[in-house]
Parts: sequence; C-alpha cells; structure tokens
Amino acid sequence: MVMKVHGSVFSPSTMRVLIALHEKDLEFEFVFVDLRASEHKKEHFLSLNPFGQVPAFEDGDLKLFESRAITQYIAHVYEDKGTPLVCEGNPMATVSVWMEVEAHQFDPAVSKLHRELVYKSKIGMATDAAVVEENEAKLAKVLDIYEARLSQSKYLGCDCFTLADLHHLPALTSLMGTPVKKLFDARPKVSAWVADIMARPALAKVLAMRNQQ
Amino acid sequence: MVMKVHGSVFSPSTMRVLIALHEKDLEFEFVFVDLRASEHKKEHFLSLNPFGQVPAFEDGDLKLFESRAITQYIAHVYEDKGTPLVCEGNPMATVSVWMEVEAHQFDPAVSKLHRELVYKSKIGMATDAAVVEENEAKLAKVLDIYEARLSQSKYLGCDCFTLADLHHLPALTSLMGTPVKKLFDARPKVSAWVADIMARPALAKVLAMRNQQ
Repeated sequence: MVMKVHGSVFSPSTMRVLIALHEKDLEFEFVFVDLRASEHKKEHFLSLNPFGQVPAFEDGDLKLFESRAITQYIAHVYEDKGTPLVCEGNPMATVSVWMEVEAHQFDPAVSKLHRELVYKSKIGMATDAAVVEENEAKLAKVLDIYEARLSQSKYLGCDCFTLADLHHLPALTSLMGTPVKKLFDARPKVSAWVADIMARPALAKVLAMRNQQ
Repeated sequence: MVMKVHGSVFSPSTMRVLIALHEKDLEFEFVFVDLRASEHKKEHFLSLNPFGQVPAFEDGDLKLFESRAITQYIAHVYEDKGTPLVCEGNPMATVSVWMEVEAHQFDPAVSKLHRELVYKSKIGMATDAAVVEENEAKLAKVLDIYEARLSQSKYLGCDCFTLADLHHLPALTSLMGTPVKKLFDARPKVSAWVADIMARPALAKVLAMRNQQ
C-alpha cells in the first residue's frame, strides 16, 4: 500500500513532508485537502489529525501528524533510500539540536513574518509594521548564530544536508520573495547555505506540484 | 567523565533534562547558572549555547543545548538504563507525534499562562486577564484532544511512560498551583494522567534539588 500525504502544497508544513518524500525518492499519493472549504476541520480529516491541521500522513495502518514527526519517521524508516537526511550516533544528537533550533528559534519569527508579509497581503489585510520590525530583529539575531555555525560546519547539523536544513525550506521559499531576503543576503555563509539548499531538486519537484493544482 | 547540566532548577527547560537524567538513574554534575546575574548571556555560557538559554549539556566532548534534543540524546544513548522513555519501531513514530504536540500545541499556551500567572506575580507585575482567557481557551481545546487520546492509550505516546509525557512535567508543576488547574481537573482521563506522571520519583528528586539551592 502506497503512503498517503493529506494536505495542501501551499501549506509550509505539508511542503516539509513532501520535500522529505522527494529526497527519499519514495512513491506516495497526495490527497488534496481544500483548506478554503475547511476540509481540515471536518470529521474525516479530524480522524487523521484531531488538531485539524495539515498535513496528515498514512503508511499502511500507521497514521501520523505533525510535520517534523512525519519527516523523522520517513528519514529513519526509509534510511536506505535516497538522501540520508539523518546520521548515526553523536552527530545525530547535534542534528536534533538544530532541528529544535529551527522549531523554537527560527520558526516563531519567520511564521509571524510570513503572516504579515505574505498571508495578509494575499487576503488584502494591512501589514503591521511593528510586528515586522520586531520579528526581523529576532530573526537577525538567529541568523547571526547561523552565520557562526555555518563557519564551522557546511550544513546546520553536520557536514551533510539533513532534516535540520530541510525543515527550513518551506519558510525560505516564501520569505525569499519579501524584503526579509536582505537579512539572509547580508550574511555570506547563510546566503550560500540558502542558495545551496534551495537548489535541491526535491524542492523543485514540490514547487512543480503547485502548478498542477 | 561525568555528564554536566548547566542551568537553573527553576527553569522549566532545565527541569525537563534533570527529570530525564533521574528517570535514567544517571550520575551527573549540576552546574548552577545564575540567571539573575545574567550568567547565561556571558561568554562562557554562550560557548555552550550561542542562544544564551538554559540548559546546556555536556557528555564528554559532546556539547548539546535545546532541552528536547538533550532528553532524546539521553533516552537513546542510555536506553539500557532506568526507565525506557522511548520505544522501538512504529510506536516511536507515535511517541514523536506527541512530543511535537507538546512542543507546538501544549507549550505555546502554557508558556503564556505561566508568564501571566506565575512569573509576572513573582516579579510584581499585573496579570493580563485577556491573555489568560485566550490561552485558557486554547489549552482547553488541546486538553479535549488529550482526553480522547488518553481514552485510547494509557500515556500520550503509547501504553508506557515516555518522553512525550515527561516533557509536560515542568509546566504541570507550575500550573497546578494556579487557577488553570481546573482545566485539568475537569477532564477525568487527563486528571488521572497528571496525577500519575506527577507522582514519578524522578520529579520529586528534581523538586528536592530546589531546596538545596
């Protein structure tokens, strides 16, 4: 039975899972969840994720949700396929640290910036300049630490591309089209890392899925 | 060389790591970081965690930060000691889901409630009733889902106590002394789960460390 991803290709969390599946060269079925019709709040979807958020994931009888738990499952269970994405032993502990950094340091600031600069403009709401300024300042501090980290290590977790890098791709994809791009461009190691990971063919495949919707 | 935890026993994130070490019956050295003297923003501590947040952790040459990455390291590397805390195979994927739920659904609401009801009153600031009301409503929805989950499974991740439960203990310890306790008490399965996990001897050992400070 082929794996199923239930979600929207425009949802950053869904993208995170789709990129991981493409990195692993795995076959899967994509089940489109119509967020505008609130399908994610209806009974069928709530049986897959009681929190009513995309994505949800099925592999045989196993049902999972929360994008970062799904990517870890894919990386560990299909470790012999495609890109490794995880490491063995102590290097994995460091990859875990930088996965937590993405979730707790990077994502809170970029999610607010995405909401102000991408989502609100799409639905015709005014941007709150104070929120943008506050979160640009937070992101700048985070990126200073990334700049130092990427001077010691080619990627965030270790010298290989792993989930710690991959988890950033959805937010980077949306922010590179906003003025926030300048914060990345101003830092040479960060800027080279962004260019490198955004050139992953797996990302291109996910962006191509958008055109088929 | 004995493991070292750098932090404060009053920090929820530090407590998370200390509870895991006590569950595993591991020897460690606790290095007190004086947050009032801003020791966590000074050069020595920043060399352990560039984000300047407690805890930081050392095991031989390996240096880690981010509490949930540290607990995972302890649980996996010392899997044959003390309480298992993780499972093998597919059940672990479900434990990961509920670890993500704690981090992304439970923690955002309880952190704001902790700030309003515990931290602000300690430093003599007024509580913002609107923030409390908003986050009590968010937490109530999360606990409704926990109530359903705990009807299917003895603990959140599986039928054994794991990191998915353990990660909740610091927040529960502080919220049970506030009016937010009523949200847990109103739900029988949640209430029994709280009583069960708060009775862990490892938590009592960490609370006893507070009295030695």
